[in-house]
Amino acid sequence: MLIIGERINGMFKAVGQAIQDHDPGVIQKLARDQVAAGANYLDVNVGPAAADALEAMVWLIEAIQEATDAPLAIDSPKVEVIEAGLGACKNSAMINSTDARPAKLQPLMALAKEHDCPLIGLTMDDRGIPGDAAGRAEMAMQICAGALDVGVPTDRLYLDPLILPINCAQEGALEVLEAIRQCKLLCDPPPKTILGLSNVSQGSKYRELINRTYLIMALTAGLDAAIADVFDTELVNGMITAEMLLNKNIYCDDYIKAYMSM
Amino acid sequence: MLIIGERINGMFKAVGQAIQDHDPGVIQKLARDQVAAGANYLDVNVGPAAADALEAMVWLIEAIQEATDAPLAIDSPKVEVIEAGLGACKNSAMINSTDARPAKLQPLMALAKEHDCPLIGLTMDDRGIPGDAAGRAEMAMQICAGALDVGVPTDRLYLDPLILPINCAQEGALEVLEAIRQCKLLCDPPPKTILGLSNVSQGSKYRELINRTYLIMALTAGLDAAIADVFDTELVNGMITAEMLLNKNIYCDDYIKAYMSM
Repeated sequence: MLIIGERINGMFKAVGQAIQDHDPGVIQKLARDQVAAGANYLDVNVGPAAADALEAMVWLIEAIQEATDAPLAIDSPKVEVIEAGLGACKNSAMINSTDARPAKLQPLMALAKEHDCPLIGLTMDDRGIPGDAAGRAEMAMQICAGALDVGVPTDRLYLDPLILPINCAQEGALEVLEAIRQCKLLCDPPPKTILGLSNVSQGSKYRELINRTYLIMALTAGLDAAIADVFDTELVNGMITAEMLLNKNIYCDDYIKAYMSM
Repeated sequence: MLIIGERINGMFKAVGQAIQDHDPGVIQKLARDQVAAGANYLDVNVGPAAADALEAMVWLIEAIQEATDAPLAIDSPKVEVIEAGLGACKNSAMINSTDARPAKLQPLMALAKEHDCPLIGLTMDDRGIPGDAAGRAEMAMQICAGALDVGVPTDRLYLDPLILPINCAQEGALEVLEAIRQCKLLCDPPPKTILGLSNVSQGSKYRELINRTYLIMALTAGLDAAIADVFDTELVNGMITAEMLLNKNIYCDDYIKAYMSM
């Protein structure tokens, strides 16, 4: 699976401060450390507090690219910030994210087409996040239709059925597993699926245990990618073990070391 | 889910010695400790070394019943040892196990009917364990047919699709997950499913990590029960967390403590 490191996000205090101070050291260490810990992509989000989100995104990307060539997931609620971010990327990038509203879907799908890059699609629209799997799959279908409209191959989509905190929407975890299964059946080539994993445990006591358990469950349901904390070694080891048990990587006695050195 | 504690088995050196010496202390401590750690049933297996397996089984059961009222899973390859074990049980018991061979299936199904007790059915016959999910489901169907023949309700069956060590049959882990899904569809009321979990990691380096990851995966596929090491706290916590995420137990901040005090 694809793991997108979640830590370069202005919501984390040290990152927000580094953005404000234009201090690249903190950012570059986070970039290098996440790649070393197994991140395939690095999420880049300036956070809600940045005074000029577009300028902050371009600065962040330039700072990261001095430290690593890892591909980036350009994460912003604003289309123009994502567009500026894609323009600043030297290497491959991913768009994070559109949802099913035409006003978001059309410009972001056009950007995905123009930059030939994968795009995360959140299964929600103006009415919010559907409560059940079928509603999420309906939103997912609208995102797939938006991709087909402009000629983005559907396997470039990462559909996110939006897991909510288990402490306020317990029945949702099961619906999201079912939505992952249903998303894979929507079109051919099948779209990929992704989760913003840490959200499941927001406000809970056993955060790491809940995160790693749910990641293994979602992988069993067919999950392709997650935005997650790669510094959580037990989470990464659980992921590697689940993928080995799903026969995606060949078993050897030291399969964890073998995976990390790939 | 139902957890059957695996530790009272003559294959463990201390247990084998205690059986030989007729020393109940070791056995009774294992019985009490497994129940305290979350076991719903206790497996009772005299091991391959017992000189008189029938006498050893009766002694073991009497020793355990002095320490706890927990229900027992009478585990032997010999029909007459299981029959003697069932006769010695004061409380409810489970038969562990039949397979799909008529010579085993008929007498054990008759015992399950006579004692009104659940029965574990291994999905194998004289040809061994089928390599794929469909072959395992075919064996499972024969066991269900054997139950219907004598009027044992199919939801009294615990079908075991037989997980093999991942280090010698890697593709099998995925087939077993699929077999768990298929077993639930075989008849109505649906049979239950069970795994002898520790077998998946036999001979592997990261045994506990593999066990707990596979248990979470199997629960996601619909597993109802496992014979497992309840002294592995991380395994039990993973199981409790997966069941909470599957919405089987109500979330509360201390859901692990709440589960253990049920």
